[in-house]
Parts: sequence; C-alpha cells; structure tokens
Amino acid sequence: MNPSPVSVQTFRAIDVIRKKRDGVELSRNDIESLVNGYTRGDIPDYQVSAWLMAVVLRGMTRPETAALTDAMLRSGEVLDLSSLPAKKVDKHSTGGVGDKTSLVLAPLAAAAGVTVPMISGRGLGHTGGTLDKLEAIPGFNVNLPVADFRRVLETCGCSMIGQTAEIAPADRKLYALRDVTGTVESPYLICASIMSKKLAEGIDALVLDVKTGSGAFMKNEKDAAFLAELMVETGERMGKQIVALITDMDQPLGNMIGNALEVVEVVDILRGKGPEDLRQLCLELAGWMLHLGGAAESVAEGKKQSEKLIASGKALDKFRQMVELQGGDPQTIDDPGKLPRAESTMIISAPREGFIASVQCEQIGTACVILGGGREKKEDSVDPTVGIVLHKKVGDEVSAGEPLATIHYNAEVRAARARQLLEESYQITDSPAHEKRPLIHRVIGKRGDKN
Amino acid sequence: MNPSPVSVQTFRAIDVIRKKRDGVELSRNDIESLVNGYTRGDIPDYQVSAWLMAVVLRGMTRPETAALTDAMLRSGEVLDLSSLPAKKVDKHSTGGVGDKTSLVLAPLAAAAGVTVPMISGRGLGHTGGTLDKLEAIPGFNVNLPVADFRRVLETCGCSMIGQTAEIAPADRKLYALRDVTGTVESPYLICASIMSKKLAEGIDALVLDVKTGSGAFMKNEKDAAFLAELMVETGERMGKQIVALITDMDQPLGNMIGNALEVVEVVDILRGKGPEDLRQLCLELAGWMLHLGGAAESVAEGKKQSEKLIASGKALDKFRQMVELQGGDPQTIDDPGKLPRAESTMIISAPREGFIASVQCEQIGTACVILGGGREKKEDSVDPTVGIVLHKKVGDEVSAGEPLATIHYNAEVRAARARQLLEESYQITDSPAHEKRPLIHRVIGKRGDKN
Repeated sequence: MNPSPVSVQTFRAIDVIRKKRDGVELSRNDIESLVNGYTRGDIPDYQVSAWLMAVVLRGMTRPETAALTDAMLRSGEVLDLSSLPAKKVDKHSTGGVGDKTSLVLAPLAAAAGVTVPMISGRGLGHTGGTLDKLEAIPGFNVNLPVADFRRVLETCGCSMIGQTAEIAPADRKLYALRDVTGTVESPYLICASIMSKKLAEGIDALVLDVKTGSGAFMKNEKDAAFLAELMVETGERMGKQIVALITDMDQPLGNMIGNALEVVEVVDILRGKGPEDLRQLCLELAGWMLHLGGAAESVAEGKKQSEKLIASGKALDKFRQMVELQGGDPQTIDDPGKLPRAESTMIISAPREGFIASVQCEQIGTACVILGGGREKKEDSVDPTVGIVLHKKVGDEVSAGEPLATIHYNAEVRAARARQLLEESYQITDSPAHEKRPLIHRVIGKRGDKN
Repeated sequence: MNPSPVSVQTFRAIDVIRKKRDGVELSRNDIESLVNGYTRGDIPDYQVSAWLMAVVLRGMTRPETAALTDAMLRSGEVLDLSSLPAKKVDKHSTGGVGDKTSLVLAPLAAAAGVTVPMISGRGLGHTGGTLDKLEAIPGFNVNLPVADFRRVLETCGCSMIGQTAEIAPADRKLYALRDVTGTVESPYLICASIMSKKLAEGIDALVLDVKTGSGAFMKNEKDAAFLAELMVETGERMGKQIVALITDMDQPLGNMIGNALEVVEVVDILRGKGPEDLRQLCLELAGWMLHLGGAAESVAEGKKQSEKLIASGKALDKFRQMVELQGGDPQTIDDPGKLPRAESTMIISAPREGFIASVQCEQIGTACVILGGGREKKEDSVDPTVGIVLHKKVGDEVSAGEPLATIHYNAEVRAARARQLLEESYQITDSPAHEKRPLIHRVIGKRGDKN
C-alpha cells in the first residue's frame, strides 16, 4: 500500500527536472530514462528544454556527465571496428578560425598505420567545419553509409564523413533543441555531445584540441581547461585513452580561412610547406595520435615520424587516396589551382606602420561567414570559394599601405561588410608585444607525458 | 549596414531566454513580446519552458515581475465593473487545508455594501479549491458567462465563478506548461499568475491571505513574507490597494475538511457559530475587505460591522441569495443536512492520553485527496461528500481512546489509506506546548495599519 497520493510510476520526467532544478544529483537511471524517452519521442521537447536550462544553471557532477554521455552514445549504433587490426584513434577540435588540422591529421596518422575513423561536423557560428572544407573538393562525398565508411577505412586507414542517422540520435535531437533554447553554453552538455559522438566511432583513443582565445568558444583558458578536464575524465570513465591539448585560438590558425582556401593550405602542409603555426600544431597533434595509436613510443617519436611521412610524400599520397575513395577529384590535390575559386579579390592594407599587436579572431571568422563561407541560418548553403588570406599575423611588422589580408569574394556588398570587420579587427602598435602567446597552452590527461 | 552576421529581427525569443539565463534584467518589451507571442502561439512551448526554468533559478527584479503581471493581465479581457457604484474588493488565499474563508467572506462583505467579484480556482495538490466546495451545493454553477457574472454582482453584490477563457489566457497557458516542467515553484511566477488573474477582475483593492506552515505551499514564514511583499508591491505598482496577511496553516483551518463538510462549517460561521480560529480569521479578513472597500473607517470597525452582519443573519441571507442566483439549492443553506453525505464514517481514536503537540497539516490534506475529495490527476472527478472532521486540534487535551477525528468515506480501501496518514499526523505529548502559533503572523502592505 502506497500512502502517497501520487500513483506509483516507474519514471516521470518532471521528477528528474525538479531534482536537477533543486541541485540534487541525478542517478544513472534518471538520466538514461530521460535520454531514451526523449529519443523515442515519449518525452516532449518542452520538458527536456526545462531540464536543459536547469543543467546549464545548476551544472552536473562527473558521474552525471558520464551517465549522460553514455546514454547519448548508446542511443544509437556504436561502430564495431574490431575487425580492423590497427588501433583506432581520432582527433576532435572544439572549433576555431582557420583550423584545418583534421584534413592533415587523418591521412598523416593513417600513413603511420593508425586507423582514423573521423566523423565530423559543419561550420558553427563564426567557426569553420571539416565537412564544409572537404566538400570544397569537387565530388567529395561526406555522406557515406556506414558500410562504405568501413570499406574506405579498410582500404586506406582513414575516412572522413558526417554524422549518420544511426550515430548518437539523442545528440542530434538534443543539439537541435539546445540551439533554439539558449542551452548550448554548458560545459557538461558540450562534453556529452562531443564525447558521445566520438566514442560511438568505436575508437580506442582520442586527442582533443580544446581552443582558447578570441576566436574560440571558450575565450579564457580557465573555461577551456575545465571543459578539457571534463572530457578527459568522462572518456577515461568510459575506458578510453584521452588526452586534451589546450591550444591557442587568439588569431586564426595558418593564413587561409575559407573552405577551398583551407584545402590549399592543407596540401601545402602535406607537401612540407605552409605556415609554421599550422605545421607545428599538426605535428604536435599527430605526435599524440601516433603515440596513443601505438605507432610511436613517445609523442616526440610520433612527431619525428610524422615529419618523415610528410617529407616522403606518404601523407599526401594517403590524402589523395582517401579523396579518390570518397569520390573527390584527386587532380585538385596534385594541383590545388584546380579547386573552385572566387570571382574577385580585394586587398586590405595597413592604415599605418607598426607591429600587429592583436587581431579579433572571432570577427575574422564572422567576416568569412558574411562572405558566404559559413551559415548565417541553418538552411544557408555554403560558398566553397570565398574566404580570407592573411598576409600579416600577430607580432609581424608592417609598413603603411602594406597588404594585411586579401578577401576572396563573389558579392560586392558582402565584401564591403567583411572589409569593415577585418579593418576593425587588426590592432597595430608602435612597438612589438613583449610576450607571445604559446601555441600549446597545456596538455591535460593522465598520460600527459608531453614529449 | 549591419556588421553582425545575424539578420536584424524585431524580436527573438532566444535572446530573451539567453538574457534571463545570464542574469540580465529583461525590458518590459522583452517580457510583453514573449508573453504575447506565446499566447498567440508564435513561440513554442519548448522555448518558454527553458525561459521559465531560467526565471525559477535566476529570479526576477520588481520591474520585471510587474511587467510580467501586466502582460499576462492584458493577454485577455479586463472586466470593466465601473458601472457598479460600490468599490470592488476581492480576497485571495495561497491555499491551505480546510480554508473555506472565501465562502464566508464574499457574502459577508457584500452584505456590508462592498462588491466582491470573485474568480477562484480548483483544488491543487493537498489543498482544497473554492470551486470544488461551491459545487458541493447541488445545482451551483461556477461556470457563468461574464454577462451572468455581472448580473449576479449587480443583484446581490457578490458572485463566485471559475476562470473564464477570456480572463488572462496567458496565465492558463503558462500555468499548464509550468505544471509539467517543474517551474511552478517560483515566487515571481506565482505572483504574476495570481495578480494577473485577480487584477483582471476589475477590482479596486485586494486582500491577500498568504498561508505559512506545514499545510501551506510556503512552509516557512520567510518565504511566505517574500511572496506577500512581492504581490503587494506588484499590485501597488499597478495602482491597486493591496494588503497581505501572513496567516497560520500549521494545522487545518476550522474542524472540517472536504467539500460538502466545509459548506456545513461555512453555514455555521454565518450563523454565528463554528470554530473560533475560522471565525477569527474570517472577521480579520472581512475587516480588511470592508475597510479597503470604503465600508468601514478602520479594520477594527470593519470587524465589528462584520460581527453584526453575522448576528443579524444578513450575511447568511446574502449567501443564500448568491447560491440561488447561481442555480444552487437554497434549502441546503437553511438545512445543511440536505447537502450530499458520504455513506460511511470511521473514527480515529487517540492511542494515548496527553496533549496534541502538532499535526502534519499537509498529510491531513493529502488524506482528504485520497478519500476522493481532491484530484490525484487533473482528469479525476471530485467526490463532494468525503472528508475529515477533526475533534481535537493543537493544544487540546485528550484521553486514551478519545476520538481525534472522523473520516467520511465511500471506499474502504481509500479510508484505510487515509486512516494511516491521519494516525501518523497527530503528535501527542505529555505536557502542553509552551507556545501557541498565532493565527495572524504579520500584515504586509503600505496600509498595514492593523486595528
């Protein structure tokens, strides 16, 4: 006999909402029931959005975060890549401007014998997206069915696709709801979203590149480190090897921003050329991928091996092979001049002489979105040709009238708006800055045996 | 030219959600647009529930609370009772167990020449509802159209109905959403809900009875006083005379709990009999209603006048008149024995001798709900006949085996559950308590010139 006026029920969403609202820790069962009920369509959007806001404002404990990640991961298919003998390692970045490292790292690690099953996303806000960059290569298909993804992995060791309907459907549904209810900005929800998708890839290890600075979602290092620790701990609780590098996003990475332009720069790096910051970060991340993937004794060894694979042309060969296997035109890799190009260019010149003290990195990303290189609304299509090439970066000396950047555009009115943002984003001072922000701020993870 | 990548829009719900999430004060326009957009159906439930949760956890400023109340009030019809010459005064209680004062006060104040346009609600959780009590009178119609409501008011000076579709539709929609999203418990939202409905009645003044104690929604006096101050300030900002009495709900008010039983006790009070606590609270609240309604120079004068109106039978006459005008059987007022009655009764006896130290008031309310006197689910119908008659209250001396309470029931299994709750709810000690909780804890309001 139950003395309560409320009938006995196995699960009520309202109870979980109230617990979280009142700061009470949720059980694994609470979280699983909520996620599964929502994914099935049994729990309505309006209850989940109230719960999400309570999570944003109340936070989550580590066990709650792991339980949420696990429930989201198990809401769909978890790839079983055990038939592939090599270790499976992926890399994920929290998003930045000019961050094209994924396109370098997947073929580079695959060339070293590590399997890289990479499932990526599209551009979000002012940041670019790996899928948009890949689609700048004519013919490249990011929407492979899982069977084809597996075939490409077996053949060349790496494959890069978009999220499928089978992988973590709970995340897709939750993310769409978070996007329209002001509940994106929570490290716990961000962690669960990223980790559920990545661990559904059936990987053994994951290298996280958590960006910080004016072009990152986490503007300050404290927030970035908090998210990084959360993701590392959550992944470790789930039995995976995880390392997180807090890296700089106070200015764009490399010199090129825009989808086709970034493919050009990727090919440059794979040819042993390209800008030094991008090259260094790629080597550092590759070092970790090779080390965690069992292809190198240490990170330093992994970096050396990566340099050799670039110098020998094997990494570029791997990239060309993957592009071809996924339907892309391999000629654009051999001759990036064949990639689609914008109709016009416009040069932004320095208004005075001096030193570049800083750039507003998010504004530069926004300028690229305005040109058509990203989406202002979800439904927008992306123009692969437009973008920005930076000629000067932080610390560089300039004379008055010297080019700072070149805008690649197809619409005058968009170029004018982008120009204004770019002009505002450069800060030029008389003397050079005393300190330079490091490229790698910190390494977080139990195996944080850097070098 | 707008440098932001986001298109210019007049209003976006997501911006208001984010502002509240981040603790930024909302403008009157933000709140109006949200409430109106939601009432029209332009803004979906899932955005409003996220916003409601942010309000629960972030709170609201006084201007925000007033703006929300005003927007909800103006979402529907505001009654214009200016054709009635007398001052319009209402009373609202935050809900308790055995609280039947509304049924006494409306005819009592009307007998003194004050117009009482009372729009009430149904039972909620463990508390009773005025409409459910009125419907225990055979034939009584609480669903009058506004035109009939006005006609009854003109004829006898008081009328008691349920919320109409025209009054504060925003509140009805918001309340239904709050009920299923864990966002009921916010003083700001409670204030806006109550005040928007009450001020839509076209009243000049309002007496608020804010309950505190084990049978109230606000268990502690601090929370009750906070809500009371919020409602008084909000009402005053909207140009009304408002007073709030913090009154005791640590045990049921009066001796009878259950819809028809409470009508019996109402008639007792209007005949100058009935329990002293109920009688005192009715006189105190009536004193305020008469005073604010211009029928008495002071609250003390209003109380004296109320006692005379009871003694002369004029208050009971008014009640009988209102019952008849609203379709109810007036014979049940002259002879409450004709009210519907439960089939069986069961006596709860004292397990030992001593003094009643305390009762668990919410449990007693829940026991009445279990008997069928309230709703466990929204769809449930209410049994008017069942309930509980208390023979002993806090401070009373009892001998072993003496009756504590009588259960009026129609179903054995329900009676057994109610008995268990009632037995658990009485605490009996060897010596009487030193202190007795006052009936009226505080009076809040600018015109708080008690006595």
